[in-house]
Amino acid sequence: MQLIDGKAISAQIKQEIAAEVAQIVNNGGKVPHLAAILVGHDGGSETYVANKVKSCAECGFKSSLIRFEAEVTEETLLAKVRELNEDADVDGFIVQLPLPKHISEQKVIETIDYRKDVDGFHPINVGRMSIGLPCYVSATPNGILELLKRYNIETSGKHCVVLGRSNIVGKPMASLMMQKAYPGDATVTVCHSRSKNIQEECLRADIIIAALGQPEFLKADMVKEGAVVIDVGTTRVPSTLTKSGFKLTGDVKFDEVALKCLFITPVPGGVGPMTIVSLMRNTLLAGKKAIYK
Amino acid sequence: MQLIDGKAISAQIKQEIAAEVAQIVNNGGKVPHLAAILVGHDGGSETYVANKVKSCAECGFKSSLIRFEAEVTEETLLAKVRELNEDADVDGFIVQLPLPKHISEQKVIETIDYRKDVDGFHPINVGRMSIGLPCYVSATPNGILELLKRYNIETSGKHCVVLGRSNIVGKPMASLMMQKAYPGDATVTVCHSRSKNIQEECLRADIIIAALGQPEFLKADMVKEGAVVIDVGTTRVPSTLTKSGFKLTGDVKFDEVALKCLFITPVPGGVGPMTIVSLMRNTLLAGKKAIYK
Repeated sequence: MQLIDGKAISAQIKQEIAAEVAQIVNNGGKVPHLAAILVGHDGGSETYVANKVKSCAECGFKSSLIRFEAEVTEETLLAKVRELNEDADVDGFIVQLPLPKHISEQKVIETIDYRKDVDGFHPINVGRMSIGLPCYVSATPNGILELLKRYNIETSGKHCVVLGRSNIVGKPMASLMMQKAYPGDATVTVCHSRSKNIQEECLRADIIIAALGQPEFLKADMVKEGAVVIDVGTTRVPSTLTKSGFKLTGDVKFDEVALKCLFITPVPGGVGPMTIVSLMRNTLLAGKKAIYK
Repeated sequence: MQLIDGKAISAQIKQEIAAEVAQIVNNGGKVPHLAAILVGHDGGSETYVANKVKSCAECGFKSSLIRFEAEVTEETLLAKVRELNEDADVDGFIVQLPLPKHISEQKVIETIDYRKDVDGFHPINVGRMSIGLPCYVSATPNGILELLKRYNIETSGKHCVVLGRSNIVGKPMASLMMQKAYPGDATVTVCHSRSKNIQEECLRADIIIAALGQPEFLKADMVKEGAVVIDVGTTRVPSTLTKSGFKLTGDVKFDEVALKCLFITPVPGGVGPMTIVSLMRNTLLAGKKAIYK
């Protein structure tokens, strides 16, 4: 069994990005600039955004954090989005989700100029990904592809089971794993809450990507010997053993599943760190105008 | 075994559309207007466009056919697309594919205003479909969903195997069959040219949607008793028995597979007629501004 070390890989990628940024700057180019809008003070969102700002520094990017109180009107938020769309210094930006209920997330996403949509959530980027055109691929699926690549994991002709059909992980992951490319070219099965015989489906899988958000859902008796298991779950489960009072728990019962795997990602330290690094890679692409002019 | 009669269903839908158009006109509304651009004189394309024009008449739509010779420049074609984008009388329009090699199909598709893209090929419509937002769903997958609906075929929790990963059938079909809806909620497996054990995958399927473009690929020993088989193939196979010199042949070896099926579509007369009728339904939606204002 080999552990897929997302923490180490993500550190390495940040160094690669920083080296490229240094070179861009040396050549008189512009420092890539990521802006983030944070609404309210949700604990999870605060942590995510703080990590993004920190990662920007590590990559040599400029970053801006724009804060609004939870009571901000949709109109005010959309006006800020439009301002960032027009701001030539901002190469890419994100609006941290979730948003307060009185604001339409979909409206906000669709107001972002797709050429600056480094989260890859705008329908144009989603559609271009599905068709196989250059685009900003959303962070988590992008990070998983990168892990498969860096560990030279064969995907062509393999049977890949994706657990979950969310718009930000399950669906794009399935699209990417079936595309004519590496990683890709896999036979892909998508299971979800309405699926029957999930155990049987998983037992046939060479690669399992678990993104259901159900702590320790995938058990040893659902995985065949030699499988590759990617755990996207990050549920906060109450715990008396940690200072924070919770423990990040994946969708995979790691201790027992790991014994059967060829490769497996831990939680934390697997997919999680790759997600932020994917955002950094998209920001670099945006800074270089590599996808859209 | 019950035959899914796409010809009868499509005739019925055209009547339903014509009735709705009559009512719209009665209420002083505008007759929906579909325009089609045809480049060159490809036999298949001529037939398809002629059928579309004829279907428009049956539905009570206004239709316009704009022709260019195969030598038309990309610039001239794009200028016409932009003109149709601006033409308030045109509710929706299509550019018949394939185009001559010197013209970028993708550029043409992306130049079409997505609000008039009744073929559903623009990345915005593809992306919105994937996310589950209202949009123009492309014609063939849309037609298949309608057949499943009209025959009350259960899809929730069923195992659906999609053969083929094309942008216009396989990928959107997979997206739609896994969405939280009816038809949908199926466990979906996508197989393609790089898949191993396609027979084994198909034998496990409750619903098979064959869209490989390989005549008579799906044989009786690949289908379980009681399966639902949807045949999207329409390959022109040379034949001495027809006036045209060819015979439309599906991806399914119909005679032997039909015996095992609960439901099956024939070729011709199954999915084919539904494809044009889906375009008519999208045109009606465009005329009513039901999806985009």
